[in-house]
Amino acid sequence: MRELTLVVGSKHLSSWSLRPYLALAHTGQPFREVVIALDQADSTANIKKYSPSGHVPVLLHGELAVWDSLAICEYLAEQFPEARLWPEAPEARAWARSVTAEMHAGFSALRSNMPMNLRARRPGEGRAPGVAEDIARITSLWTECRSRFGRGGGPFLLGAFSIADAFYAPVVTRFVTYEVELDAECAAYRDAVLALPAMKAWTQAATA
Amino acid sequence: MRELTLVVGSKHLSSWSLRPYLALAHTGQPFREVVIALDQADSTANIKKYSPSGHVPVLLHGELAVWDSLAICEYLAEQFPEARLWPEAPEARAWARSVTAEMHAGFSALRSNMPMNLRARRPGEGRAPGVAEDIARITSLWTECRSRFGRGGGPFLLGAFSIADAFYAPVVTRFVTYEVELDAECAAYRDAVLALPAMKAWTQAATA
Repeated sequence: MRELTLVVGSKHLSSWSLRPYLALAHTGQPFREVVIALDQADSTANIKKYSPSGHVPVLLHGELAVWDSLAICEYLAEQFPEARLWPEAPEARAWARSVTAEMHAGFSALRSNMPMNLRARRPGEGRAPGVAEDIARITSLWTECRSRFGRGGGPFLLGAFSIADAFYAPVVTRFVTYEVELDAECAAYRDAVLALPAMKAWTQAATA
Repeated sequence: MRELTLVVGSKHLSSWSLRPYLALAHTGQPFREVVIALDQADSTANIKKYSPSGHVPVLLHGELAVWDSLAICEYLAEQFPEARLWPEAPEARAWARSVTAEMHAGFSALRSNMPMNLRARRPGEGRAPGVAEDIARITSLWTECRSRFGRGGGPFLLGAFSIADAFYAPVVTRFVTYEVELDAECAAYRDAVLALPAMKAWTQAATA
């Protein structure tokens, strides 16, 4: 069997790395992990040893390097179909991919003003222009996903855990770090993500 | 059969809309098109009639709305597998998804300083900091894809046309608009994209 290696950035900072980590953990496959310290003089050189794009995360599967958080998750979904990383019903699957892609390319105000940092607590900070709109859009997405697809199937966006949850997990941590107030339904979703064993393991490693 | 409708923005401006248009055209499926003029007082209101995210493009398939250029392309790849919108070999497929995802979330210097505008010709403009690095990365990606997977199978990044080409098509038009010099191999790829019948139809509508 080809070995799986996930190359990630510093765990308290690298929101892009957290996503495929959660997806890969969900497959139950054994994997090796390489953590590269970010914001160091040799970070770029270290990343380039593994990554065709010069960015983390990268998944190495035998000789093959797959990069970018979303491409890695799609690859895992195809390689390990029994993990059901996407919902099976076409409509739920299309929604899962839509909200995932919206996160992948969007929410720049939130991402630049409320960077992920699992070692920090910054209540009330980061409220720059555009951030409130990003938060409103995210919580309305969560609510609509839960209402359309989440009932009865589990506590996650589409019911059972999917790549969509992996993609919103960094936002969940930002809502904790910056103490963003949530209604009961969104708070329950946030807490379900925080309770994932893989999320706990990642956070523990990030804050140790 | 459920009707397919693609809602796009002004064709000379909306780089995000061009991508799923090329993918949808490649499926050969009949579809209806709705074009919303961007940068107008009522653009946002018009988009919201169709789009859950408030952005174009959106694909309507019967009652289902799929949004975001990448999620739409993945949806089309699953709904119309005979169109082979992704390469079949797992390694080529992983590369196609990696370069597509890198485009989807990256190259912000190029995208903001060399916006797509099929009605403009701006030789030499747009050379802001970071743009040369983005161009170098894109051309090295093209060269590496062609060298690994493109030989013998056709003139596109992975040989035959795939979603990766749909994603780099707006960049191809920028290289024309801003007259970015390319080596022979990258120029040949650019010309293959420009020669796609769907690309010609889009450009003609955009500049009419």
